[in-house]
Amino acid sequence: MKNIKEDKELNILNHSCAHLLAHAVKRLYPDALFWVGPVIEEGFYYDIDLGDVVVNDDIIEAISKEMKKIVKENKLIKRLELSKEEALEMFANDPYKIDIIENLNEDEVISAYKQEDFVDLCRGPHVESTKLLKHFKLLKHSGAYYKGDSKNKVLQRIYGVCFQNEEDLNEHLALLEDAKERDHRKLGKDLGLFMMDELVGKGFPMWLPNGFIVRRELVDYMINQEVARGYQHVMTPSLGNVNLYKTSGHWAHYKDDMFPAMEVDDEAYVLRPMNCPHHMVMFKNSFHSYRDLPIRIAEIANDFRFESSGSLCGLERTRAFTQNDSHIFCRENQIKDEFKKVVELILDVYKDFGFENYSFRLSLRDVNNKEKYFGNDDLWEKSETALREVLNELGADFYEAPGEAAFYGPKLDVQVRSAIGHDVTLSTVQIDYQLPERFELEYVDEDGNKVRPVVIHRAIMGTFDRFMAFLIEETKGQFPLWLAPVQVNVIPVNNEYHLEYAKKVVSDLKRVGLRVELDDRNEKLGYKMRESQTRKINYNLVLGNKERDELSVTYRKHGKEESVTLPLNDFIDMVKDEIDNKKLNK
Amino acid sequence: MKNIKEDKELNILNHSCAHLLAHAVKRLYPDALFWVGPVIEEGFYYDIDLGDVVVNDDIIEAISKEMKKIVKENKLIKRLELSKEEALEMFANDPYKIDIIENLNEDEVISAYKQEDFVDLCRGPHVESTKLLKHFKLLKHSGAYYKGDSKNKVLQRIYGVCFQNEEDLNEHLALLEDAKERDHRKLGKDLGLFMMDELVGKGFPMWLPNGFIVRRELVDYMINQEVARGYQHVMTPSLGNVNLYKTSGHWAHYKDDMFPAMEVDDEAYVLRPMNCPHHMVMFKNSFHSYRDLPIRIAEIANDFRFESSGSLCGLERTRAFTQNDSHIFCRENQIKDEFKKVVELILDVYKDFGFENYSFRLSLRDVNNKEKYFGNDDLWEKSETALREVLNELGADFYEAPGEAAFYGPKLDVQVRSAIGHDVTLSTVQIDYQLPERFELEYVDEDGNKVRPVVIHRAIMGTFDRFMAFLIEETKGQFPLWLAPVQVNVIPVNNEYHLEYAKKVVSDLKRVGLRVELDDRNEKLGYKMRESQTRKINYNLVLGNKERDELSVTYRKHGKEESVTLPLNDFIDMVKDEIDNKKLNK
Repeated sequence: MKNIKEDKELNILNHSCAHLLAHAVKRLYPDALFWVGPVIEEGFYYDIDLGDVVVNDDIIEAISKEMKKIVKENKLIKRLELSKEEALEMFANDPYKIDIIENLNEDEVISAYKQEDFVDLCRGPHVESTKLLKHFKLLKHSGAYYKGDSKNKVLQRIYGVCFQNEEDLNEHLALLEDAKERDHRKLGKDLGLFMMDELVGKGFPMWLPNGFIVRRELVDYMINQEVARGYQHVMTPSLGNVNLYKTSGHWAHYKDDMFPAMEVDDEAYVLRPMNCPHHMVMFKNSFHSYRDLPIRIAEIANDFRFESSGSLCGLERTRAFTQNDSHIFCRENQIKDEFKKVVELILDVYKDFGFENYSFRLSLRDVNNKEKYFGNDDLWEKSETALREVLNELGADFYEAPGEAAFYGPKLDVQVRSAIGHDVTLSTVQIDYQLPERFELEYVDEDGNKVRPVVIHRAIMGTFDRFMAFLIEETKGQFPLWLAPVQVNVIPVNNEYHLEYAKKVVSDLKRVGLRVELDDRNEKLGYKMRESQTRKINYNLVLGNKERDELSVTYRKHGKEESVTLPLNDFIDMVKDEIDNKKLNK
Repeated sequence: MKNIKEDKELNILNHSCAHLLAHAVKRLYPDALFWVGPVIEEGFYYDIDLGDVVVNDDIIEAISKEMKKIVKENKLIKRLELSKEEALEMFANDPYKIDIIENLNEDEVISAYKQEDFVDLCRGPHVESTKLLKHFKLLKHSGAYYKGDSKNKVLQRIYGVCFQNEEDLNEHLALLEDAKERDHRKLGKDLGLFMMDELVGKGFPMWLPNGFIVRRELVDYMINQEVARGYQHVMTPSLGNVNLYKTSGHWAHYKDDMFPAMEVDDEAYVLRPMNCPHHMVMFKNSFHSYRDLPIRIAEIANDFRFESSGSLCGLERTRAFTQNDSHIFCRENQIKDEFKKVVELILDVYKDFGFENYSFRLSLRDVNNKEKYFGNDDLWEKSETALREVLNELGADFYEAPGEAAFYGPKLDVQVRSAIGHDVTLSTVQIDYQLPERFELEYVDEDGNKVRPVVIHRAIMGTFDRFMAFLIEETKGQFPLWLAPVQVNVIPVNNEYHLEYAKKVVSDLKRVGLRVELDDRNEKLGYKMRESQTRKINYNLVLGNKERDELSVTYRKHGKEESVTLPLNDFIDMVKDEIDNKKLNK
């Protein structure tokens, strides 16, 4: 989806279109007064004082019609430049504009744009005539407090968007519609995946049974992937003594993003925002020889961050979340190899989920500001070179971002482009020379010397919460079979004649580990099929005389039109294969 | 193990034996002064001021010898009764005794016991002569601050125990030895199961890789058991808004056992001590018809309680723990059936773990104090009768505990007797009429009326932490194969000739999902076998020429003497069967 605000031409077009909207409103409601009409990522809006009038769909329709009329009339758009005094005179009867003008600097040249007899303040630039604003669409409307303050009057906010041609507009509208359908908050509710409740708290998702099934499959998948690659999973508590974060440095640098500390006895505990300190303490708990490294400690880790309530968004930004975290403790000469293995794991996982649109960003040190970074030149050069070499060896398409490294080491971010065109950072890999120093970690090398290990922080799925949000929007809630909360719905055509066979089928499917439901309610077949479709159940089996007599099933896959009849055992083999191989929906 | 303090005769015997100890010390160290010598659960101890002498094993040996001598001398033990004044005079040169005497009431008769020329204060009673104290044993010694205050002088504390006969003493000593070997804190460390660290916090266990494997198996086992019985697993955050606990009533009644609240913006959040409120909110989130009930919401739930630091004990009593929790929302006429299903689940689980020594305690209302309880007579009678009937129907051996019910409903506790003779409450089932009322939960009945559901709280394994502590002590860390962190250790006789075959065996075993290690270090075979034994690895395979040429393995089971040779495939079938059927170690 295009970012209107950041596209220079579209920005001008949408600014102009906001004026077109206001012009039309003024023709229909001569008493209307206008507050501000900015361009936003999705297009534009205008906040309008319409007195007692509350905008509804009919009014939007009428305004839209009037806008089209003005477009046809092809009014020229003229720029006026005014002194503050002139501006105050021109808008003398408009308290909103006076408010704006009074907040401008004394010596600023104030610009306004005029089309026909309608004049409105704007920095501009604008397009030359209303003819160029033909391809617009009013999108939605809502109430909005004047200056966002709930003690003030409610203004009418009307949203719209404008493009250079009808094709672009339609594409944008289709994407908007698609994004609405994919919204993980809506699907999360419709499909019973998760819920939120103010009594529990803001930003604290509660995973409902269907959501937990998907989540459990994701967690198991990730642990199994990691264990097969030599990771050792652990579990550590979601809080720590404040001294732990003083040792790690988080208390000095990250305190504001954490929940406040809890004082008990003569100690203070705090919910953890990340897991590094716990894993450092664990490494330090036992003796390590160079032969033991690398040690890959992994955790499905519950963390807490104090995000402002305004920034919370479904599962995407929460105050409680679960990281797919790991810390790899290795020797310096193992960095390259370990980094490579992490990138390979990322690629393997993306392949399993069918993510093909991703990009690598390698964040490096700013060589002109070396004092900002921890550790010596030699370390940085060696590790940056190692990372670059790995990405080249893997043929990965990456770009370098000098100056974007963390102060403790270089890092790699992997961004995946979502179905609705957002770039989401799913995976990260960071090299860290600092925490091993702060926690005084050691291993004994070949010569019996005590040496600091290097730590690689990494997350593949990022947090399971955000990954889930992403996955819901990618799949529209139509999960691949291995993840689906309900994999098969079994519907007997007639409860009197086919229920017994349906029960046998359910029992056979359950025996091989499938998540199956039996719909034996006294409802019409068509109703049951539609409901099953809405619930996005992957396979619907309809069982009648033929199926019963043949020991077969007739199935319809979600989203497909055709029905297929197969012997029951062949169907079982087919779905087992689909699950075992984690096949994606086609 | 016998509780010495609570056994009347043993209590007297051990009190007397503490004096015997002091008497012997006085003979050997005439300047010794004595503070207190109480009887405790495990026997007795005496805190002694020996000047600069620090007790060591040789001194213990000498004291023990002297005690035996006094036993042989058969000294009579006489009770003296003194006024405070007389007592102060008698112990005029002993500041410790003067301290004690001065803290007694003015008019109290003070008793002392005298044997030979040794007199010491004691309430008594004592045995009549030292002859009766023959069967004692001094157990250990340590330093102890006078009055437990670290600013005071360190006294020498000597522990001992005394029995009526040698047989009882030896049995007790054997049990003590066994308990020491089974201690889950010791085994947890030796086997790399969990660790604690002050920097992370007191009472916050960190599960190490081996412990996490066992824990993951336990959690998976429990979820699978529950899902097969129609439970729906969910996941909810480990904290909640304080208002949630005001609604549930915990804030008023349970606040002191919770961590302090965290204030953010204009809200306060608190770590949850239990999960009921979250599950109530979840039930309330959607509409329910009578047809939907029972709804069994289950969670592997992370909770926090503020236990005093002195009460913390390994995994047994922690400040962070994970409950095997569930809340069953049902109609009143479903209580009996649901309760029965829960008890059946408990019995099935115990069977899988081989727990045979357990008892049921049915806690009922005190009918003479009805005002203490929530809900009406009819409800209580019906549910208590239902619970009693179920236990009878199942042929369960139970006892009733009137007055022990929670104020919100009757409950069942299942206590399991541990290998070292402790009774541990593993499972609980509680009927609750109150929370549904407080959260105003509803379902719609057959007639369209809104009705409150009843809630059954239940935990089968209790907390995974405490269950793990119990399991470690039961098995001495020798887990059944399905739970074992490392199931098979593969040792080639000679790395030159047998390593390739060993690697093939490892790869074949891994392919079927076994947790296998290969020990190809350049160490002696005997050394490797002993280490494997210490690590309690279940199967040790030794592979030489014969095994390589025959495609066989020679295995030794942990704790067994004999070696058995089997074709590789037969060995795989055998261990797979052992795992799939969750066979117990014999």
